[in-house]
Amino acid sequence: LSGQPDFDLLRVVLVRTRNPLNIGAVARAMSNFGFPHLRVVNPYEVAFREARSAVGASDVLAKAEEFSNVADAASDCTLVVGTTAARRRELQYPLRTLEDGARRIRKRLTSGRVAILFGSERTGLSNEELSHCHWLIRIPAREENPSVNLGQAVAICLYELVRNPKIRGQTEKERFAAAGEVERITAALLEALHESGYLSPRASALAEEKMRRLVRRLKLSPSDAELWLGMLRKIVWKMSGSHPSSRV
Amino acid sequence: LSGQPDFDLLRVVLVRTRNPLNIGAVARAMSNFGFPHLRVVNPYEVAFREARSAVGASDVLAKAEEFSNVADAASDCTLVVGTTAARRRELQYPLRTLEDGARRIRKRLTSGRVAILFGSERTGLSNEELSHCHWLIRIPAREENPSVNLGQAVAICLYELVRNPKIRGQTEKERFAAAGEVERITAALLEALHESGYLSPRASALAEEKMRRLVRRLKLSPSDAELWLGMLRKIVWKMSGSHPSSRV
Repeated sequence: LSGQPDFDLLRVVLVRTRNPLNIGAVARAMSNFGFPHLRVVNPYEVAFREARSAVGASDVLAKAEEFSNVADAASDCTLVVGTTAARRRELQYPLRTLEDGARRIRKRLTSGRVAILFGSERTGLSNEELSHCHWLIRIPAREENPSVNLGQAVAICLYELVRNPKIRGQTEKERFAAAGEVERITAALLEALHESGYLSPRASALAEEKMRRLVRRLKLSPSDAELWLGMLRKIVWKMSGSHPSSRV
Repeated sequence: LSGQPDFDLLRVVLVRTRNPLNIGAVARAMSNFGFPHLRVVNPYEVAFREARSAVGASDVLAKAEEFSNVADAASDCTLVVGTTAARRRELQYPLRTLEDGARRIRKRLTSGRVAILFGSERTGLSNEELSHCHWLIRIPAREENPSVNLGQAVAICLYELVRNPKIRGQTEKERFAAAGEVERITAALLEALHESGYLSPRASALAEEKMRRLVRRLKLSPSDAELWLGMLRKIVWKMSGSHPSSRV
């Protein structure tokens, strides 16, 4: 496709959104800028229904897909990007300027699906939700008041994606595994680590999120991902098959 | 101030705004991006009062100045810029991309006040209001749906003003594990694959080379390399420790 980003490949993912006006504003911005595909994860049901039935509700809302968790909502995407007001807990992820992030997203949209996650109005993205992200982008708001309204944040991100029609020369056409495959690798790795005693049976969600980030940093190609999954499954099968009761 | 734009010199001017939520959203974006001075021209009075008295209404709203026409609202500004969805009647004004316009506005903000006018939600700026403008900017929305929500339009314009085009994506100083460490990971992986039966005892040098390349494609950082080596060694230890004679 001659290096042009395909905006049909973007998935705007709203996570636990509560305000129907925000959902409507997001859909409107998507229609303004030509991004047709909205996904919602555990929206506040009343809000989602209200937004959907509002006068002038767009095609975008009519076709929106609903999911119960981020893993499912991002499973067919090769790049998962989170948005943040950059609080302390998120410093463990690479944090990119919106401009730099948008350039990378445009590039990826030449070959695969990309999800951009927007957290709930009150709490943003949770640690578990963040752990599905490859990296984060931040809108350059002031430190004194960094929290940008959801509808405005989405509008600004989409504007930045469409803003520069000039696409910088792609170096190589890299291809990446979909998030669903990466999550299967994570699951197999976690099983192997539990079997081996590397992670204790009581290993915290924190440890699992750390492993999830570790696997995402590998940036696996589809074929390498298949290889790693095969290897890990064989290892797990060997470990658990030989010691059916070894896991305490 | 050595060519730095002074955002205190910008006046965001809302003309005949009707929806209090939009006024509130505009004030919030201004606070996010550090533009303190809002002016309103003939707002729908109820809307303005409602926005002003809303919970969490900002300093920006408290200090907003009210005018009865655009001439007065822009009288102390050296540059007056209109915003438009670019309908036919506005073709008599120079129309700039938001990016180009923002660059000129930033430049002017080094020395004098600038007003950016945003028209009413339903009709935009009237011909009389447009006639006070030096030129117009347009947000690059699709022709099929060019009308951007007022709060989102202001947020996008202010974002473009604060976005520093000079800061190109940080090239990001990446660090990589030394070859010796990568080779230790490869060795541990090969051992795990032999133990598990993924690789047969007679696996060829070719298979080992394939695994070696696979590990190198991960481009691990020094700290991630240490993690992977620890995990693999634990797995190998568990597999071989339990079955000292399992490897034929």
